[in-house]
Amino acid sequence: MTELLTADALEAALRDVGATRYHHLHPFQLRLQSGACSRGEVEAWALNRYLYQACIPQKDAAILARMDDAQLRREWRQRIIDHDGEREGEGGIAKWLKLTDDLGLDREDVMSGRLALPATKFAVNAYVSFVKDRSLLEAIASSLTELFSPMVIKIRSAGMLENYDFITPETLAYFNKRPVQAKRDSDFALDYVKRYATTPELQRAAIGALEFKCSMLWAMLDALEHAYLYAKPWPDAFQTADRGQRQAAE
Amino acid sequence: MTELLTADALEAALRDVGATRYHHLHPFQLRLQSGACSRGEVEAWALNRYLYQACIPQKDAAILARMDDAQLRREWRQRIIDHDGEREGEGGIAKWLKLTDDLGLDREDVMSGRLALPATKFAVNAYVSFVKDRSLLEAIASSLTELFSPMVIKIRSAGMLENYDFITPETLAYFNKRPVQAKRDSDFALDYVKRYATTPELQRAAIGALEFKCSMLWAMLDALEHAYLYAKPWPDAFQTADRGQRQAAE
Repeated sequence: MTELLTADALEAALRDVGATRYHHLHPFQLRLQSGACSRGEVEAWALNRYLYQACIPQKDAAILARMDDAQLRREWRQRIIDHDGEREGEGGIAKWLKLTDDLGLDREDVMSGRLALPATKFAVNAYVSFVKDRSLLEAIASSLTELFSPMVIKIRSAGMLENYDFITPETLAYFNKRPVQAKRDSDFALDYVKRYATTPELQRAAIGALEFKCSMLWAMLDALEHAYLYAKPWPDAFQTADRGQRQAAE
Repeated sequence: MTELLTADALEAALRDVGATRYHHLHPFQLRLQSGACSRGEVEAWALNRYLYQACIPQKDAAILARMDDAQLRREWRQRIIDHDGEREGEGGIAKWLKLTDDLGLDREDVMSGRLALPATKFAVNAYVSFVKDRSLLEAIASSLTELFSPMVIKIRSAGMLENYDFITPETLAYFNKRPVQAKRDSDFALDYVKRYATTPELQRAAIGALEFKCSMLWAMLDALEHAYLYAKPWPDAFQTADRGQRQAAE
């Protein structure tokens, strides 16, 4: 990319990253929402993704720490409040634990991360490192996967409710508020990126940051698919009780 | 683990980590050495593993930077010399590039890492972060995979030479010196760990560090196996020319 894009063309390029690289296209995501996953796979998905959910306020705090404008910080800090809540038991992380609770997972197992796949830990760690090490523009641009999440949430929640008798609307409460929050957050971040990516190099960096973020979410599902469908999980990671059963039924 | 192990029992526990978790057991490793990999898969392996090879002097420099004892630094710095060489074209990284050269890979593609799988980058990044963030004892203990590498190198090199007509002894020159270097390095690191892991907690941390390192090497092969055997590589990553051919032949 050598020419400066218009703001609209930059937005189109960013949306194209989502259209081609966001995890709504991942085979594991399609299996999850179609009912093809075993209960153990749904548990493994929820347990591993907890580490991603849990890192969000930390990565947002790392971004906040780099902002030297109070107005910008006031906007961004809401993300931390959304995930951590006003008090114990509230906020996005607590709601994710409602999901893992309902799946029968032990909170200590989930929260410690000790049963997560190594690749999940590496991906989440890469995301937090990215927002610390790269420019503020890239850190903000990496959040733009929220442009694409409302669509996925709607399809996934409907599919999971329809296809798994162990999933209730309360189990998926995390996702209720996310589309509105994600729309508000991504509107703000998109406006910021369009405003401050003022050279071809900065535009390329912003697009690259969103590609990185998509690759990180994709890698998390790759790891789940590999461990629980094609190969075997790392011996210290979560083992699915229904694995033999599912394979025997194939 | 609540009791202090004897030095010999600690060594046995460390060796047991290798016996159960080192990547000599990984299915991709077994395919690689048995001749079951397509040429494209061998290329993908060499290209991705370059990032691991390239990070070694950086992770050793990070460890060196944490050592406050000159004698210890004199021992450890040899690792950096081994991989970076005395001059351009020498050392382990240059020899790895001989391998990728012989496979017909473009040096800029290899050295930039732009075609590596995202999961490879995350794993390598996790390793460098680990030696910076954890204790010096854990950083040193994480190098102990070298206890197990000479055995793997011998089997892999013999298997690759026998099974791939595009591999010559010169292609695999990297591995010639590694067994002797790895023996010297791991003897030193093992002695250090046995000497300084003086509480059950420190012993547990040292064992955990070696488990982490094994999981990182394993995750790199998982990513290769997933991308090039079971699923598809990330669209921006290396695409194998012989993929369709190999699959059509199955």
